[in-house]
Amino acid sequence: MAPPGAGLLSLNTATTRGHWGLAQAIEGCARHGILGISPWRDLLHVMGVDKAAKAIRAHQLTVTGLCRGGMFPARDARSRKANIADNLRAIDEAHALGARCLVLVVGGLPEGSKDLAGARAQVRDGIAAILPQAKAAGVPLAIEPLHPMYAADRACVNSLAQALDLCDALDRGRRGAPDLRLELRAYHICDWLVPTTDLLLDRGMMGDGVIDLKRIRGWMARAGYRGFHEVEIFSANNWWKRDPDEVLATCKARHRWMS
Amino acid sequence: MAPPGAGLLSLNTATTRGHWGLAQAIEGCARHGILGISPWRDLLHVMGVDKAAKAIRAHQLTVTGLCRGGMFPARDARSRKANIADNLRAIDEAHALGARCLVLVVGGLPEGSKDLAGARAQVRDGIAAILPQAKAAGVPLAIEPLHPMYAADRACVNSLAQALDLCDALDRGRRGAPDLRLELRAYHICDWLVPTTDLLLDRGMMGDGVIDLKRIRGWMARAGYRGFHEVEIFSANNWWKRDPDEVLATCKARHRWMS
Repeated sequence: MAPPGAGLLSLNTATTRGHWGLAQAIEGCARHGILGISPWRDLLHVMGVDKAAKAIRAHQLTVTGLCRGGMFPARDARSRKANIADNLRAIDEAHALGARCLVLVVGGLPEGSKDLAGARAQVRDGIAAILPQAKAAGVPLAIEPLHPMYAADRACVNSLAQALDLCDALDRGRRGAPDLRLELRAYHICDWLVPTTDLLLDRGMMGDGVIDLKRIRGWMARAGYRGFHEVEIFSANNWWKRDPDEVLATCKARHRWMS
Repeated sequence: MAPPGAGLLSLNTATTRGHWGLAQAIEGCARHGILGISPWRDLLHVMGVDKAAKAIRAHQLTVTGLCRGGMFPARDARSRKANIADNLRAIDEAHALGARCLVLVVGGLPEGSKDLAGARAQVRDGIAAILPQAKAAGVPLAIEPLHPMYAADRACVNSLAQALDLCDALDRGRRGAPDLRLELRAYHICDWLVPTTDLLLDRGMMGDGVIDLKRIRGWMARAGYRGFHEVEIFSANNWWKRDPDEVLATCKARHRWMS
């Protein structure tokens, strides 16, 4: 019997971290009727890109994103160059998986720096450096603005407005007419718990927190987004301690509730 | 011998919480040559408003703010009314102390609510309700935008832009020409630690984190702010465990460094 469908739900593998490798996550999605998956690169490297691409195709899953590129800022030119090289590898991997985008968690302040504007300039330069290869490979780059509490150590782009400004700056840096196509490329869902006990690892399951998820889903729809809804929950003390099959069943139920 | 001066440094009593009552904080400021103080109301109530006002005058301290009013949103009309009544008492207390402002930590979502816009409307209505008495008493109301991570449980006003929009909305709600005078009325300092281990109680001493405090100080100066620099550090596992005299000496040294 086919499992009940999960609509546009996609599983970001961070949600089952610690339990499932990528092969298990792919099989888990198939078992639960979840049609989208977004792998993290560490799991991808363990499984191997070719093997992962084959398994994903076999189960007809949509790769809603590859997590993650970015992390551009660094203290010296050599490290920045290494970061760019790693992003170019990520583009190749995203291409091999047929991912709908490479998610860019752009990075925070270089070690010892307090210069947020400088970090943002390094992000702009880093994206500019990888853009030609991304375009050639047909891999859209998805800038992921993170909550301002991550500005220092994870992402110095903290709002959609800043992401759009960044795209404008990238377009201005190019010769000729603007040619970046801007769109909402991915849509992550989770919830904000009150209280939140850890800045990174205490995210909530949809419905357990205070975010008006139905309203935001409406905003996405009105903005023309028709893609998957990717559940990414970092939860060291709750969801990461549970059986991943229970986690996926809960994701499906909550996703139905918010849809 | 007079202590070395502390310039425009002001002590917010949250910085020495758990050790000093208000009387001790007033004496501590005097002993360290700190010319400004910003009391929290719980300590003020323990000491008594008249006694506190007298001690503050005796030491010629400037009351850079009274912490705090606000916390307007609530689930039902009766609770909102009680919150407004408490704010009116806070205005009286700020007046009695000659405080330069009543700090408004405006409040977050009412219990069970996910309606951020609704909470902001309740804040607007709450401020509108107390504004006449604040004006009559000559007590400026200082809206304190808090970091977005406090939007749900502490303050649904999370940027200077939102605070200004709120003032615009308050002005539109009044008859006749706009008559709110807008200015930067207070300036809190601390630092953002990396990592930050607690959303509320792990704030850093100036210089121990990643905030470019000198740059922000320059912004304040260019915006015309000439008032005190009020150090408010919630730090359960570090500064709250130390001898308050050491804390004040450190505040002075770090304030000199950032000035």
